[in-house]
Amino acid sequence: MTKSRKLHVDKLLEFLMEDIGFGDITSESLIPEDQEAHAKLYFREPGVVSGLDETETIFELLNCKVTTHAKDGDRTKANQTLLEVDGPAISILSGERTALNLIGRMAGIATTTAETVKKASLENPKIRIAATRKCMPGLRTLDKKAVIHGGGDPHRYRLDDCVLIKDNHLVLVDSITSAINKVRAKVSFTKMIEVEVETTNQAVEAAEAGADIVMFDNMSPAKIRETMAVLERKGLRERLLLEASGGITPDNVADYAATQVDIISLGHLTHSVKSLNVKLEIEMI
Amino acid sequence: MTKSRKLHVDKLLEFLMEDIGFGDITSESLIPEDQEAHAKLYFREPGVVSGLDETETIFELLNCKVTTHAKDGDRTKANQTLLEVDGPAISILSGERTALNLIGRMAGIATTTAETVKKASLENPKIRIAATRKCMPGLRTLDKKAVIHGGGDPHRYRLDDCVLIKDNHLVLVDSITSAINKVRAKVSFTKMIEVEVETTNQAVEAAEAGADIVMFDNMSPAKIRETMAVLERKGLRERLLLEASGGITPDNVADYAATQVDIISLGHLTHSVKSLNVKLEIEMI
Amino acid sequence: MTKSRKLHVDKLLEFLMEDIGFGDITSESLIPEDQEAHAKLYFREPGVVSGLDETETIFELLNCKVTTHAKDGDRTKANQTLLEVDGPAISILSGERTALNLIGRMAGIATTTAETVKKASLENPKIRIAATRKCMPGLRTLDKKAVIHGGGDPHRYRLDDCVLIKDNHLVLVDSITSAINKVRAKVSFTKMIEVEVETTNQAVEAAEAGADIVMFDNMSPAKIRETMAVLERKGLRERLLLEASGGITPDNVADYAATQVDIISLGHLTHSVKSLNVKLEIEMI
Amino acid sequence: MTKSRKLHVDKLLEFLMEDIGFGDITSESLIPEDQEAHAKLYFREPGVVSGLDETETIFELLNCKVTTHAKDGDRTKANQTLLEVDGPAISILSGERTALNLIGRMAGIATTTAETVKKASLENPKIRIAATRKCMPGLRTLDKKAVIHGGGDPHRYRLDDCVLIKDNHLVLVDSITSAINKVRAKVSFTKMIEVEVETTNQAVEAAEAGADIVMFDNMSPAKIRETMAVLERKGLRERLLLEASGGITPDNVADYAATQVDIISLGHLTHSVKSLNVKLEIEMI
Amino acid sequence: MTKSRKLHVDKLLEFLMEDIGFGDITSESLIPEDQEAHAKLYFREPGVVSGLDETETIFELLNCKVTTHAKDGDRTKANQTLLEVDGPAISILSGERTALNLIGRMAGIATTTAETVKKASLENPKIRIAATRKCMPGLRTLDKKAVIHGGGDPHRYRLDDCVLIKDNHLVLVDSITSAINKVRAKVSFTKMIEVEVETTNQAVEAAEAGADIVMFDNMSPAKIRETMAVLERKGLRERLLLEASGGITPDNVADYAATQVDIISLGHLTHSVKSLNVKLEIEMI
Amino acid sequence: MTKSRKLHVDKLLEFLMEDIGFGDITSESLIPEDQEAHAKLYFREPGVVSGLDETETIFELLNCKVTTHAKDGDRTKANQTLLEVDGPAISILSGERTALNLIGRMAGIATTTAETVKKASLENPKIRIAATRKCMPGLRTLDKKAVIHGGGDPHRYRLDDCVLIKDNHLVLVDSITSAINKVRAKVSFTKMIEVEVETTNQAVEAAEAGADIVMFDNMSPAKIRETMAVLERKGLRERLLLEASGGITPDNVADYAATQVDIISLGHLTHSVKSLNVKLEIEMI
Repeated sequence: MTKSRKLHVDKLLEFLMEDIGFGDITSESLIPEDQEAHAKLYFREPGVVSGLDETETIFELLNCKVTTHAKDGDRTKANQTLLEVDGPAISILSGERTALNLIGRMAGIATTTAETVKKASLENPKIRIAATRKCMPGLRTLDKKAVIHGGGDPHRYRLDDCVLIKDNHLVLVDSITSAINKVRAKVSFTKMIEVEVETTNQAVEAAEAGADIVMFDNMSPAKIRETMAVLERKGLRERLLLEASGGITPDNVADYAATQVDIISLGHLTHSVKSLNVKLEIEMI
Repeated sequence: MTKSRKLHVDKLLEFLMEDIGFGDITSESLIPEDQEAHAKLYFREPGVVSGLDETETIFELLNCKVTTHAKDGDRTKANQTLLEVDGPAISILSGERTALNLIGRMAGIATTTAETVKKASLENPKIRIAATRKCMPGLRTLDKKAVIHGGGDPHRYRLDDCVLIKDNHLVLVDSITSAINKVRAKVSFTKMIEVEVETTNQAVEAAEAGADIVMFDNMSPAKIRETMAVLERKGLRERLLLEASGGITPDNVADYAATQVDIISLGHLTHSVKSLNVKLEIEMI
Repeated sequence: MTKSRKLHVDKLLEFLMEDIGFGDITSESLIPEDQEAHAKLYFREPGVVSGLDETETIFELLNCKVTTHAKDGDRTKANQTLLEVDGPAISILSGERTALNLIGRMAGIATTTAETVKKASLENPKIRIAATRKCMPGLRTLDKKAVIHGGGDPHRYRLDDCVLIKDNHLVLVDSITSAINKVRAKVSFTKMIEVEVETTNQAVEAAEAGADIVMFDNMSPAKIRETMAVLERKGLRERLLLEASGGITPDNVADYAATQVDIISLGHLTHSVKSLNVKLEIEMI
Repeated sequence: MTKSRKLHVDKLLEFLMEDIGFGDITSESLIPEDQEAHAKLYFREPGVVSGLDETETIFELLNCKVTTHAKDGDRTKANQTLLEVDGPAISILSGERTALNLIGRMAGIATTTAETVKKASLENPKIRIAATRKCMPGLRTLDKKAVIHGGGDPHRYRLDDCVLIKDNHLVLVDSITSAINKVRAKVSFTKMIEVEVETTNQAVEAAEAGADIVMFDNMSPAKIRETMAVLERKGLRERLLLEASGGITPDNVADYAATQVDIISLGHLTHSVKSLNVKLEIEMI
Repeated sequence: MTKSRKLHVDKLLEFLMEDIGFGDITSESLIPEDQEAHAKLYFREPGVVSGLDETETIFELLNCKVTTHAKDGDRTKANQTLLEVDGPAISILSGERTALNLIGRMAGIATTTAETVKKASLENPKIRIAATRKCMPGLRTLDKKAVIHGGGDPHRYRLDDCVLIKDNHLVLVDSITSAINKVRAKVSFTKMIEVEVETTNQAVEAAEAGADIVMFDNMSPAKIRETMAVLERKGLRERLLLEASGGITPDNVADYAATQVDIISLGHLTHSVKSLNVKLEIEMI
Repeated sequence: MTKSRKLHVDKLLEFLMEDIGFGDITSESLIPEDQEAHAKLYFREPGVVSGLDETETIFELLNCKVTTHAKDGDRTKANQTLLEVDGPAISILSGERTALNLIGRMAGIATTTAETVKKASLENPKIRIAATRKCMPGLRTLDKKAVIHGGGDPHRYRLDDCVLIKDNHLVLVDSITSAINKVRAKVSFTKMIEVEVETTNQAVEAAEAGADIVMFDNMSPAKIRETMAVLERKGLRERLLLEASGGITPDNVADYAATQVDIISLGHLTHSVKSLNVKLEIEMI
């Protein structure tokens, strides 16, 4: 979308300058200023596209023309051309690394997210796969965007997005009930209240005290099922969102999905990203 | 070092604000402003420490006192306390995620670098393990710093650090010799000239034309050995630095090190980072 | 709280520079650099204090020492000293206008909010008085903070805080039900969904489709009561938050509060602020 | 003027981002990216237009096309279309609140200024109605601009604009004469010297010592007349500008204007602004 | 003054980073972090001190302690120690060049200004020597500050400081009289009006139309005298400030001063600065 | 080149705002917004052009159209039109001073550099004339760029560009040999190592220890020759770059060039710049 392009220009320009510094001394020495080039971008492996929008802006900032053949969120085959760049050869070479670093990470996140969604959906077609705040500093917006492109839910961008009462908070108050009451009184009514629990009893208390979301933290699928049964029995299941979290990876996500929780969140999606193998193929013209 | 702390404050403050937004609505609702807390930071797995300096600054920015029990570059055992924080509980909770995201990535990079250095050194004790520019946008300085803490060489931070003539550049000039001459004439004498080659002939041409560093790009260890023998025979080996690059990972680094090249560079160190598992354990006081 | 002081320094410094420019040419010409002064700050009329924290930071930025005798959110009588400043006379004079402009507006907002809360509470002790996004550009955080000091609810800070489906949005979709379904599918599960309605039927549809909050927009108290009765009858009242908005001021807020809605929001609180009359009394020493 | 549009873009972009945050989650979920819309902007009450230029820039930043039917400083009737916007519906909805908040305040200032000018001019057609530095932090330029659109004089933008010796300054020097001499010696010759006085004697002393402007601070119209007569008698009136200030509002401005001072300044114009009631009417196309 | 130190920190930090980049790789490799050093700063030639305040801030930003033995505006002999620094050797070496570049320029400006003032004062003890806007981009504040330290008048910092009607402006209006009237009507009453003239007739017209300052542009001392005599005869001299400008240097300034104009302005003071020869002598401890 | 224009816009916009402030009050009062003007830029003396690119950007930022008749690095005769501007008269007048201040300095640097290169080349056609870090704070990039336009070598932009071991560093280590070894071990292999020497013995030690560049600091041409002869005799000359520095000016540069060193560096090129006399001639249309 053209809107986002305008609004994120400063960040992307900062990324470009971080890599270019006082200039691309190699290209500027070897290549005439008026030498035009053409380049095409593709991934060497299949995956989900993300970061195309940013790549487009990066090259436009360097006075290139960009044509896209896909959009963020699309699946791509290996070696399928997604974007073409036309412009000064020096510009294309100067922007190459910044663009590839960014799109490689974003597509890596989107692809892992999509795989996770796929595995989980087989067990529960309505499940949401969510990210956490375990993103890279400075890249929060882009990491979350990539999760969305992969079909995931961004969860909280920041600490002000919704309330999440954790064990560290509970050390300080009498009970979950009292914590929820305190928060309800102080935080804007526009905010949901999520509570992290480790036992069935805690889950029940949170639900009865009016939590909007209950997160099962580091609980086994078996324990989660057991707890969900209790909630169901007490008539608390319906008005709650249930989230599983802690130590979940694409490898064991299906087991958690099979419990029929509403949401599964994984730090894994953004904190240890494997870049998707990306290539910009340049030819002088 | 206290110097860097001062100079990087803006970046770290920006990281903090990115996560905190308008406020940590959960902690601020639940915890009294004057509630003090104590926290200790450790990794749950052994590794090489990096990011301790940044972590210290982050908590100091939030008005906490920090005591360190190690310094960046040190090896750490699992669960060994590296840093302690004392300050307002709200501050510690507000800074936790930003600090952990950063130190987790940096220690992940440092640890992988150190492992790579170790494997390569068994074959060639004088070898340098270098990073590339395949870093995350916005994190260039910190990624490179982590590589150094792991015993690696940062290589180019930016395009202006030294000349690196690649295949894309060579498309545009008659020959490697002509490219080196052009660059020598235009670029400051303070800059080294590195040339990426794919064949023995190219390596010889680069050496004869006065390259300071020759990078064997995507050449097998066998091919590298063969080329080095030719360079030796022609009396060109001595005044050159030789670097191997392309598709090298900790798994195959030993084979490349055994060729006795001077430097091995790996995009792997920074472009697909596995965070080191880090924990901040908080207790209220 | 000291935390916020650190994090908002840049904004306040920018405010100071906007007023000082190249220097306070009058004070710097007339007053010796080492002339110390003392000042006390008070309001000339009773009200609710807000902006004390910012005022403290402003004078600290100018190397003054500040002692506070109240905290934000406190009620103050006319002429009650709230804060004292000691430091270079030039500094106090240079910071005076910026501090007064800010604290005057913030206390004005807090005072009006508190009056509104008071009037509404007589009719419904559990009611929330909320602000809107009708704040001054650049002052969003401070305007919302002042509302909170006055006992109000900040409502949305930004467009990403919760979903709010308005008439302009409904033009584009088949129905409220379809809009809620669309949003539920696309927006993070951590976000509440609010729908603005103008008729009883719309209110019922929104409630049945699963809205978390229904806002009665420009509906008379009578019409609101009528709609609430219908919702009650259909068993939809309980799981909903009900908000009245549109044309409400401190003058008519009691009528709306008497309907027993949960929330009343007023653009009036921030878009047409009357500054509380504030004075900094300086004496040279 | 197109010049200012370019130079103020950063500020306006910052305002936009403050409201949009990570995105307009409602509009982006409901409205297709390629949905175009048309909107027209008008005030629901008559007044003086100000902020049209900024509104135009805001929508252009969001990739809309803007057509204006008036210019800042023009009078407008109620419901008279002043500006039309064409562009992506999401963009128009995302920019709406920021634009309305700004133009509402600016037109509010301009309108009150114009009313004040009108009342005062009946008594003294050559009088200047001036603002003060009682503006909102961060909005100094825009507040002053609105005053100008209303036919007022901006007075000092910053402390470096001209010298203004106040009672707080006079505490520190022997006399007004000595203060003026000190300032004359130290401040650039390009700067005017204004002195705030509270008595006839002070006014005479200031005039005799060479003040360029004398400000009657919190003096009644009668007292001002009396002082002006003395100045006239002593032959000091001619080379002076005389300004009345302190507690003046549109309600009593005529009394002060009738004294035939040259300038009347009112903090009221900017420190307690009533926004002009503005509406952006959107239709999808 | 400590005030300015706080407010200018960002600019000076930016200057430091511009020189340090990713680090002082030489010092950081050779010198232990805990190695302390001491340094003293002096000029190798006599002159007027300026930039001491900035130098102090620069080293404080690098965690050094600074003791000053003079203040800006003082005269200094050759080799007289003005400032001492104690701190980490790496810090002192990292800040050295930035500090010296700045203080060298500022003292150069102050010294030339002082010499010019001295020469001119012999002819007219009350004369003002003023700078122009011919300063270096980004250094306006510092260049003007240095002029003041040298005993000069800063003249306009920016285009909004006072009105200056030049030949280019006059091309567009009927006459000087009409230009002055236009400006008087549109510009704030707080601003002086200066008019640049090239003939006696223009000078008389400007004076009669109410200009506050008349600038003789590129007129010879003889022509200036002649014009001043006419103004005197017409009774216009008294209420005017008269300024000579254009092609004036320290070499010919006395001739212009002898005309008894009030002000002489020289672009020379800031547009072609000769740095004062400055040295930071470092010893390790 | 269009690339740099995009990337440096922020800096140039900052320069413009520094001069314009709240507006060009003179031009805006006198000249209608829609008054178009044309201007041509030339130097009043012959020299080397530099800063044309920045000038173009400055006027484009103000919505003018620019046509260039030369490019940076070209020689220009006196009064030869280099650039023409068409656009709003107010824009041209508002940008004039900023553009002239910048291009005057840059062309001054380029011209002096070119003269120095010319004089030195007569003695040694292959010599490089290099700048130092004695540039103006905030103008590093532009000062270095101007040196390059004059045919010079920029030398180090920042402390991280290459290693330069100076006398202050040597105080701390046993010997030059030990310093070089330390640096070689710690600094990236991509960085050259330069050593500053004051005696023949030091030069030999540096060369034998593997320095890449040896700088003769404050050594007379005779002493340099003598040292070069020793290096030659020991077979060390070939693999070294030799640089002369310290007290060298255009006046004595030929003597140093005659020694046949490879590089001569002069702080003089950037630390005491004489602006080239530049004029923007405006005509209204």
